[in-house]
Amino acid sequence: MQPINIVKIGGNVIDNPDQLNQFLMDFAALRGPKVLVHGGGKLATEMAAKLGVKSQLLEGRRITDAATLEVVTMVYAGLINKGIVAKLQAHSCNAIGLSGADGNLIKARKRPSTPIDYGFVGDIEEHSVDLQGLNSLLELGLVPVFSAITHEGTGQLLNTNADTIASVLAVALAKDYRSSLVYCFEKKGVLREVDKEDSLIEEITSLQYPELVEQGILSDGMIPKLSNAFSAIEKGVESVRIGASSEFSKYGKEAFGTTLLK
Amino acid sequence: MQPINIVKIGGNVIDNPDQLNQFLMDFAALRGPKVLVHGGGKLATEMAAKLGVKSQLLEGRRITDAATLEVVTMVYAGLINKGIVAKLQAHSCNAIGLSGADGNLIKARKRPSTPIDYGFVGDIEEHSVDLQGLNSLLELGLVPVFSAITHEGTGQLLNTNADTIASVLAVALAKDYRSSLVYCFEKKGVLREVDKEDSLIEEITSLQYPELVEQGILSDGMIPKLSNAFSAIEKGVESVRIGASSEFSKYGKEAFGTTLLK
Repeated sequence: MQPINIVKIGGNVIDNPDQLNQFLMDFAALRGPKVLVHGGGKLATEMAAKLGVKSQLLEGRRITDAATLEVVTMVYAGLINKGIVAKLQAHSCNAIGLSGADGNLIKARKRPSTPIDYGFVGDIEEHSVDLQGLNSLLELGLVPVFSAITHEGTGQLLNTNADTIASVLAVALAKDYRSSLVYCFEKKGVLREVDKEDSLIEEITSLQYPELVEQGILSDGMIPKLSNAFSAIEKGVESVRIGASSEFSKYGKEAFGTTLLK
Repeated sequence: MQPINIVKIGGNVIDNPDQLNQFLMDFAALRGPKVLVHGGGKLATEMAAKLGVKSQLLEGRRITDAATLEVVTMVYAGLINKGIVAKLQAHSCNAIGLSGADGNLIKARKRPSTPIDYGFVGDIEEHSVDLQGLNSLLELGLVPVFSAITHEGTGQLLNTNADTIASVLAVALAKDYRSSLVYCFEKKGVLREVDKEDSLIEEITSLQYPELVEQGILSDGMIPKLSNAFSAIEKGVESVRIGASSEFSKYGKEAFGTTLLK
């Protein structure tokens, strides 16, 4: 089977035009079939504030009401997605910007409104992906660039976690490819001490993972990301890397971030 | 050759959710390969106002400065485009939302800054379209939905007239299809008297057109649309219709709007 890379970038690199340009140049240079998934960054929060759309939080998590959904659709699927696509095209990478509604590629379920009503938030699993449709685009040599917007199939768009989209795509693609998932963020990888960049853990196996959680070594923010990652490995993804977007040029060539293995 | 329909909708229907739903249901029901092109409507103007982005006009035409380009990219390629795609999907129409940057499908030239600097505005011709790329998507059974955003190929997005995009796509597709172009707007078609819906001109030939212009029968707003249309016919488009989006269900079945012929 042919290898494929599914790469996710988050707010830190999206919010910084120079870093984003550098990352996109490195991503464009990555050979073989590939998929990019991007989150939103501060832009959506800033835009919501400017438009007077209040960010509602419930138990620390953001609620996507109708007005917020409009803002994230504009910012993620419009401003950020098309900006990334245009820049990748400038680097001769034939990107195509997509939401889950486009080509019906990712069909989500609206999260149940009990116990907490998160609003227009979509939950997805690997069977949410139209693998055949996605493969058709890849076979044309296109590079899908997904924003964190999916749909329900009833005309309703849904805000969906970008980490989950990346992982679900990697799992779905693992049926037809040797699928590698890469999470890029602001740190060098999973760190033993959160503020020390030289405390990088180079490798974590699925056996070591629960121990690290128990020992309290992993930060709260990191645990959902790693759980997602190990669940993806369980479901057929060959490897998961977590590393700095600023070091992405190293990926596939030299040591890059933390590697998660079965 | 197989027929194809390229349909353009404008602000009037986009600004009215009920009308838009009805139109999209009718468009979804149209058989055979098809392409939808949409403009922006009042939403972009309203959004710009809310965000404090001033609409600059020069000799009556809008200037797209960097801030305005961000707004139209968000609104056209994000909010409106994904909303339309999700609704078409709900009507079992396998829509895929696109800007000209996606798949490098429409590469524009930035309009020269002299004599008037319109800012980030793109000019296109039929060779701006990647016909092979567009055909690949159509052959997958996808229904391209274009927003009025193209790109320059250097990473720069460009605001581009939606009527022109529709006409340029119809001309490019005329090489491989019997291409029909449909402009939907708020009136029943080209009217002899602008306020009288019963003064519809059912047919205009390219010979009659200059006469109607000379007689002052055509409104100023209609002339660029008709010029575009006749130029498309000159370049191989089989027919151009101009009619009401609210009557689109009639298209291909009974009398609909004004037909422009060679």
